[in-house]
Amino acid sequence: MRIAVDGMGGDNAPQEIVAGSVLAAREMDARIVLVGDQNLLRAELDKHPHVPSGVSIHHAGSFIRMDESAAVSIRKKKDSSVSICADLAKEGVVDAFVTAGHTGAAVVASTLKLRMLEGIERPGIGIVLPTLGDTPTLLIDVGANIDTKPAHLYQYALMGDVYFRYILRKNRPSVGILNIGEEETKGTEYIKEAHQLLNKSRLHFIGNVEGRDIFNGKVDIVVCDGFVGNVVLKVSESIADVISKLLKAELKRSAITMLGALLAKPAFDALKREVDYSEYGGAPLLGIDGNCIISHGSSNARAIKNAIRRAGEFVKYEINQHIVEAVRSSE
Amino acid sequence: MRIAVDGMGGDNAPQEIVAGSVLAAREMDARIVLVGDQNLLRAELDKHPHVPSGVSIHHAGSFIRMDESAAVSIRKKKDSSVSICADLAKEGVVDAFVTAGHTGAAVVASTLKLRMLEGIERPGIGIVLPTLGDTPTLLIDVGANIDTKPAHLYQYALMGDVYFRYILRKNRPSVGILNIGEEETKGTEYIKEAHQLLNKSRLHFIGNVEGRDIFNGKVDIVVCDGFVGNVVLKVSESIADVISKLLKAELKRSAITMLGALLAKPAFDALKREVDYSEYGGAPLLGIDGNCIISHGSSNARAIKNAIRRAGEFVKYEINQHIVEAVRSSE
Repeated sequence: MRIAVDGMGGDNAPQEIVAGSVLAAREMDARIVLVGDQNLLRAELDKHPHVPSGVSIHHAGSFIRMDESAAVSIRKKKDSSVSICADLAKEGVVDAFVTAGHTGAAVVASTLKLRMLEGIERPGIGIVLPTLGDTPTLLIDVGANIDTKPAHLYQYALMGDVYFRYILRKNRPSVGILNIGEEETKGTEYIKEAHQLLNKSRLHFIGNVEGRDIFNGKVDIVVCDGFVGNVVLKVSESIADVISKLLKAELKRSAITMLGALLAKPAFDALKREVDYSEYGGAPLLGIDGNCIISHGSSNARAIKNAIRRAGEFVKYEINQHIVEAVRSSE
Repeated sequence: MRIAVDGMGGDNAPQEIVAGSVLAAREMDARIVLVGDQNLLRAELDKHPHVPSGVSIHHAGSFIRMDESAAVSIRKKKDSSVSICADLAKEGVVDAFVTAGHTGAAVVASTLKLRMLEGIERPGIGIVLPTLGDTPTLLIDVGANIDTKPAHLYQYALMGDVYFRYILRKNRPSVGILNIGEEETKGTEYIKEAHQLLNKSRLHFIGNVEGRDIFNGKVDIVVCDGFVGNVVLKVSESIADVISKLLKAELKRSAITMLGALLAKPAFDALKREVDYSEYGGAPLLGIDGNCIISHGSSNARAIKNAIRRAGEFVKYEINQHIVEAVRSSE
């Protein structure tokens, strides 16, 4: 198995990307192709005493900055690291690619170069979120497509079902549509139409769910338009951060509460691990005819390693093949 | 000043509603009219040893359950507590009303009976959220209107500006549009149009903001469509709850972390107060020609008291008058 990694994407590139790739190459039976400026990447690799032989470098002459337009930059910068990752996937040189860079650029490059799977109209980014329940929740779409139609929500549910069954290992995962109330009469017109489509499907559709149900473990897969999903994701990340900052400030107010915090530290650390995005691997761009895993912009080596592992799982369990079969048998 | 309170609305009605009304009547120079089943309300009032003379009961023969359709129930249940609250406001018997009941019913009753303010097309619920900054953020709309047009977002900003200046006491509050990126080119078409409207306005418009900016104190007023706002609100509430539950479970794992938690308790309590919705008063339904304050469904007496206080502030500072003036001078 060969996996390309965008060596130039993300806040901590290339250092953490290279470190994560080295970690992954040690743990996995896969060849890792680091894509980006060969001098920079070589210098980073040289910092690691024992680089597994499966790690190689593929030069890319440029990269896409976070403030660039996705569509324009993919058209103009044909030698950008993420473009070349998608090219390598298209040509079959690699089986999958991982990027922590410009999400929009990854979506545009994947959609243009790899095209969509048969029967899937739009891509959706599916992110795994921790919950109070036994299994995490898969939220699709968190920002690949903001012009969402009822059929797209239905297709997200189909793809999420495959993801959940093969990767998260749960049979008949439940699916809900993110809405502002549980009643069938609630919400916008396109949500009501998606409701009809899902009601008629063979999926384990439990109806509308609300914002609070994403984290309480009530439902396995939550589908929504990319605008709402993106806002939800960013709000969620920031609240965890805000609560942690506010609590730290309060704990510092007295010696006793500081001592308490010190004693309670193992619990704080455990909680941090539990809600740490880097533990959950990257988010697949579902629906494209290829395997693209998008990792958080602030990914550290551990997050990159987990994203590469997830990419490996997508290849190993032939997720796209199963999606195409699911689409066909649903028609 | 007279304020009607929906005695039958909310998870803890009538007990906490009556208790909150008694608290408010003690603190404020206002007459409180409790609206609902007179026998139930009288029995609740009788539990309080010293009921201020300003508290009275207005009978309502029914109330609207949470699972009823807002539009249907307001049309059919003309004697429901929230309908009668709106009637009393329309007839000028009271200056404002507060409800912790069915939000949709409160919106429909207010819109139908009180109508909109001159120049405002749709109502918006504005909620005050705690932030890392010095002032809270006002998020509008969190669910009054899910068929949102660019002009509505602009009007929410105008109304939020008045709210912030007169109630939250900050001159020239900043306004942002909730979007999936800061760049002007990002987002849906209606957001781009709202951007144009706000750019041309006299408001302190700072452009697009992202989900994370709601809680980091970067912006004072965030406008969004009611669907997104409602999801954001429910996600935010649930995350605080989930983090607290996960942390409690982790703290219980060892005697040392439990001791730590005990010592750190004052800090946890302070944080809880800081993020407690009941401290922030109710959420005004902005844009109607009257004063309706919507309180959280799970409101306790303290939250109801604060919502009644907020209703009093709306009357005292003539917020609607200022909104109409702001609309006129913006044309």
